[in-house]
Amino acid sequence: MKIALFNEGRVGVVNGNDIVEISDLGHGSVLDVLVALETLRPQIERALASGDRMPLESVRLLAPIPRPGKILAMGSNYLEGTEGPPLPIWAFFKSPDSIIGPEETIVLPNVSARIFHHEAELVAIIGKKGKNISPEEAPSHVCGYTAGIDVSGRFEHLPTSILNKSHDGFAPIGPWVVTADDISDPHDLHVRLRVDGQPRQDFSTSDMGHRIWDSIAYLSAVTPLNPGDLIFTGTNHQGLGALQNGDKVELEIEEIGTLRVHVADPLNRTWPKGIDREIGQRVIEMIRTGTPPGSQRPAK
Amino acid sequence: MKIALFNEGRVGVVNGNDIVEISDLGHGSVLDVLVALETLRPQIERALASGDRMPLESVRLLAPIPRPGKILAMGSNYLEGTEGPPLPIWAFFKSPDSIIGPEETIVLPNVSARIFHHEAELVAIIGKKGKNISPEEAPSHVCGYTAGIDVSGRFEHLPTSILNKSHDGFAPIGPWVVTADDISDPHDLHVRLRVDGQPRQDFSTSDMGHRIWDSIAYLSAVTPLNPGDLIFTGTNHQGLGALQNGDKVELEIEEIGTLRVHVADPLNRTWPKGIDREIGQRVIEMIRTGTPPGSQRPAK
Repeated sequence: MKIALFNEGRVGVVNGNDIVEISDLGHGSVLDVLVALETLRPQIERALASGDRMPLESVRLLAPIPRPGKILAMGSNYLEGTEGPPLPIWAFFKSPDSIIGPEETIVLPNVSARIFHHEAELVAIIGKKGKNISPEEAPSHVCGYTAGIDVSGRFEHLPTSILNKSHDGFAPIGPWVVTADDISDPHDLHVRLRVDGQPRQDFSTSDMGHRIWDSIAYLSAVTPLNPGDLIFTGTNHQGLGALQNGDKVELEIEEIGTLRVHVADPLNRTWPKGIDREIGQRVIEMIRTGTPPGSQRPAK
Repeated sequence: MKIALFNEGRVGVVNGNDIVEISDLGHGSVLDVLVALETLRPQIERALASGDRMPLESVRLLAPIPRPGKILAMGSNYLEGTEGPPLPIWAFFKSPDSIIGPEETIVLPNVSARIFHHEAELVAIIGKKGKNISPEEAPSHVCGYTAGIDVSGRFEHLPTSILNKSHDGFAPIGPWVVTADDISDPHDLHVRLRVDGQPRQDFSTSDMGHRIWDSIAYLSAVTPLNPGDLIFTGTNHQGLGALQNGDKVELEIEEIGTLRVHVADPLNRTWPKGIDREIGQRVIEMIRTGTPPGSQRPAK
């Protein structure tokens, strides 16, 4: 099922080109519905069968999880088409206050970034609290998936910090959450990102370096995962490109849908349009030499 | 005023060696009291004058802000006794689920850290929402201060990540919050940390590289600051030492009080006791050469 937040904060189920409101089931947020899904399922089925339908295009979709408790993001987590092995597993936080939703606008901040990149990512939503979750138990802690863009500023001289990844609007998600039971295999989804209709990123989540279950085990060994926490599962850097004023960005993930956002830059900076091959090459080189980011020396 | 959380989550005002409960004023958290302080002040004064006092030692103090919305931590933010200039301003997140309170125990995790250090820090508590806050407006956004330890694992090969700073218990705070109006000058407080009674860190917040107001301006240019967000203002690395099994750690900040926590290590690893001069020297070298952490090349 596709659970969406729309208009002034109503909850609905997306069905084909329609949306059926289920706010009256007493669950005021998408997360509440996801967590109570098994109990609510009969009522949702009834609403779908009998309910008032609205055309999807007549409503305004909002970010389905507008304020996560935490956003955890996996770093350098794709094989980038190499045979691997993947870089050592690591993760960082994005600001939980950086979420925007469909058709909203990423406003590029006035900071000395060399460039701002889109990073297309599959996002897993935690539905059950846990600490020290085993990879085997991990699937039961994920209640759904959505599409997300890890907007990333690149700086010459900066450790991984709030400046790269956490500005307002640097975490677009949506267009809705697909419940976990409706994703056939989260490690076999086609991810495509287009800017103004032109292809940029185009990869499969099968290229992921560390499976989502291993990421959950890793993260939850550090800090508890709670309902509503988001895990950005990482990106394949081949196909990254600049974000700049006026761009229309569409992220399409198979079995999920298409998240569309816009870009504005009050400073009207310009970068070459198209794919930025330099960063993709650099990440492949890191994988080939086993050198994680932030490390002066190889890890192996 | 010193506002504390105690026993099963009661709110009280610390007065000398006593605590006076104010839970019945209808504000269920320390943060709620801080935010409504001006309105509540007459009632608090009456409670102090007439109220039932309990000896502080008869209650169990809890972390005053048990689950902040965000924890933002300033990196490399002291002059370390040099003439400066400070390293470029930067910041990172700690997990908001890593808070512990007075007399609780930091359990060292089973990860490949070279060493775990205590970083003694003045912690500012945000009381008023803001984005793009100017340094001039910043003081009005801080409702209080507490003492905090930024527990830090050191790894050979790792970018700043969740593994260094965000394990359960890696953010002890307390023993209470002192309201901002009762701190004469947050940039002139003596900070002392002792392990098993032996001196380790001993510095003044006057050595801070970027003033708290500039940090708030910097952070709020990136992401909104909300009531209950914590800012760990950074540490002077001279005097850092290992944390290890059985340690009793006392952090005393002038005008605030003493936060005491314990350390347990199920793996019983051992490090030399006393001050670890190597890291302090390294940070001074970074300042002298203008090389921020995570950077291969000097920033200037």
